[in-house]
Amino acid sequence: MKLATYKDGSRDGQLLVVSRDLSQAHYANGIATRMQQVLDDWGFLSPQLEDLYTQLNHGKLRHAFPFESKLCMAPLPRAYQWADGSAYINHVELVRKARGAEVPASFYTDPLMYQGGSDDFLGPCEPARFASEAMGIDFEAEIAVITGDVAMGATPEQALEGVRLLMLANDWSLRNLIPAELAKGFGFFQSKPATAFSPVAVTPDELAGAWAGGRVELNLQSMWNGRKVGNCEAGPEMTFHFGQLIAHVAKTRNVRAGSIVGSGTVSNKDWSRGYSCIAEKRAIETIEDGAPKTEFMKFGDSIRIEMKGRDGQSVFGAIDQDVVSAAAEPDQQMKE
Amino acid sequence: MKLATYKDGSRDGQLLVVSRDLSQAHYANGIATRMQQVLDDWGFLSPQLEDLYTQLNHGKLRHAFPFESKLCMAPLPRAYQWADGSAYINHVELVRKARGAEVPASFYTDPLMYQGGSDDFLGPCEPARFASEAMGIDFEAEIAVITGDVAMGATPEQALEGVRLLMLANDWSLRNLIPAELAKGFGFFQSKPATAFSPVAVTPDELAGAWAGGRVELNLQSMWNGRKVGNCEAGPEMTFHFGQLIAHVAKTRNVRAGSIVGSGTVSNKDWSRGYSCIAEKRAIETIEDGAPKTEFMKFGDSIRIEMKGRDGQSVFGAIDQDVVSAAAEPDQQMKE
Repeated sequence: MKLATYKDGSRDGQLLVVSRDLSQAHYANGIATRMQQVLDDWGFLSPQLEDLYTQLNHGKLRHAFPFESKLCMAPLPRAYQWADGSAYINHVELVRKARGAEVPASFYTDPLMYQGGSDDFLGPCEPARFASEAMGIDFEAEIAVITGDVAMGATPEQALEGVRLLMLANDWSLRNLIPAELAKGFGFFQSKPATAFSPVAVTPDELAGAWAGGRVELNLQSMWNGRKVGNCEAGPEMTFHFGQLIAHVAKTRNVRAGSIVGSGTVSNKDWSRGYSCIAEKRAIETIEDGAPKTEFMKFGDSIRIEMKGRDGQSVFGAIDQDVVSAAAEPDQQMKE
Repeated sequence: MKLATYKDGSRDGQLLVVSRDLSQAHYANGIATRMQQVLDDWGFLSPQLEDLYTQLNHGKLRHAFPFESKLCMAPLPRAYQWADGSAYINHVELVRKARGAEVPASFYTDPLMYQGGSDDFLGPCEPARFASEAMGIDFEAEIAVITGDVAMGATPEQALEGVRLLMLANDWSLRNLIPAELAKGFGFFQSKPATAFSPVAVTPDELAGAWAGGRVELNLQSMWNGRKVGNCEAGPEMTFHFGQLIAHVAKTRNVRAGSIVGSGTVSNKDWSRGYSCIAEKRAIETIEDGAPKTEFMKFGDSIRIEMKGRDGQSVFGAIDQDVVSAAAEPDQQMKE
């Protein structure tokens, strides 16, 4: 099943069921109007949405309409939790190697994870606004899951059962704010502005055999200003699978329905596959040539992030955002 | 106006208006059923709740009933953001001095803040469950505000206008998990289990003259196992006021309605005022005697946190929690 949320002027938007090929949509009202509602009562509501989805795929719904990514909010426009891992240890190795630092042995058994802001997500085609290019504007192409309830102390296997939906994420980062912020010792904050998500969130069965062992065995593509810069395998090099990441969150507290858990930047040891964030490209340049030469993003730049299934079709639709100066339209900063 | 949320078996509970003296309550239905609803549409709904509050205080509501803190969830049982500052620099100075570390000059101008989990808050009288005493169980008595919408780039003065409600918080911390977690560089995560909040949240006018310049000029009391261990002045030594803390959150992103921002442990230079977290007492012992002697909390311990107004009445009601082994009642871990 594929679900999306259309803008309707409200904070939570309108829940849609979207056809497998992303061509058609149908409002879910009568069943649920908001995504969080479905996550709060998954066992009761999701089978009803699945029925609607089946009818939509078979062209049996009279009130179906063409689906447009541009009208989407994030599938879950605001969430009670956004916990982002750094599950591709190759990314960590590269960034550390570039600055001459070791990767502690514990990093291979204990996932890195930060708690992100989740009150103001961006839709897949919404501009990303920043006060200054000097902040070091970078995209981060990731996979994320939305969970149901997972009890404190859950094992990775139990936690994996809690995965309800999958999405793509663009975890915008302000690289030049990171060193000073991490030096304070309390983790990321201002260096992590609003995150964007793909047009649709999908149930794991939509990935068929490509969802295996808590990993997505597909390629994640990143196009920067229309040029393909990354085509990274998301599966084999994900050091910690989603069950392990969720169990990390649940170690000392309950994880409640509607929590979003991210994979961190998808990264491969084979550099010819490209990159899912510019910081990694700059790390490679530093390792090879002693200094980075690729600059971070500028106002007017675009980033497109997409994942194709084994059938060649887009699974989640594309994140397709422009980088915009926050000064350009100050009145538009708040969505309502 | 004073608002609370009663348990009703749902995730968001039932919104109540509570009388100024905390003796009587009345359901807010007809106006709003959930706290987040009110925050989403404050301008329209809060005057209606104020009217109900006035009638309740004058004993004019036929369906009023006695208010009981024990039946409360957190005023906002789950939130889209929980950002906790460390605004009392004395606390930072003490903890650093105990381990022989300097306080960087920037800490006096740039607030420390971490992003906390907000999907599973505890009610004021709910037990706090932990897997092991060896984790170093500690309370942290704080003040917190709930905001309306605050646009990216807001000044501290603009941000202060965004304060809708005030509460007390008990930001439970697992001290023995902190060193390893902070060493990873991504900030607190497992060392910060579910936070608890006071029975009621109040509008700033309830503090009358004690709400001044974004600070609460009242004393915060902490009773550990029935013994008063802290009676700290919350006002004069708050290095960063709430407008500054909210502006810190809003520096690179919009802050949306229902965000909770915390003060961090309330702390005074005058050690005779006691402490609002055990870590601080242990820091003082280390500075004085070379080693801490007060142990962290044990299963069966209790902590009571309360703040009295200038009239001697409890402003927010008391946080009054027991420390419990998570193993004791595994089936009770999830509230629904």
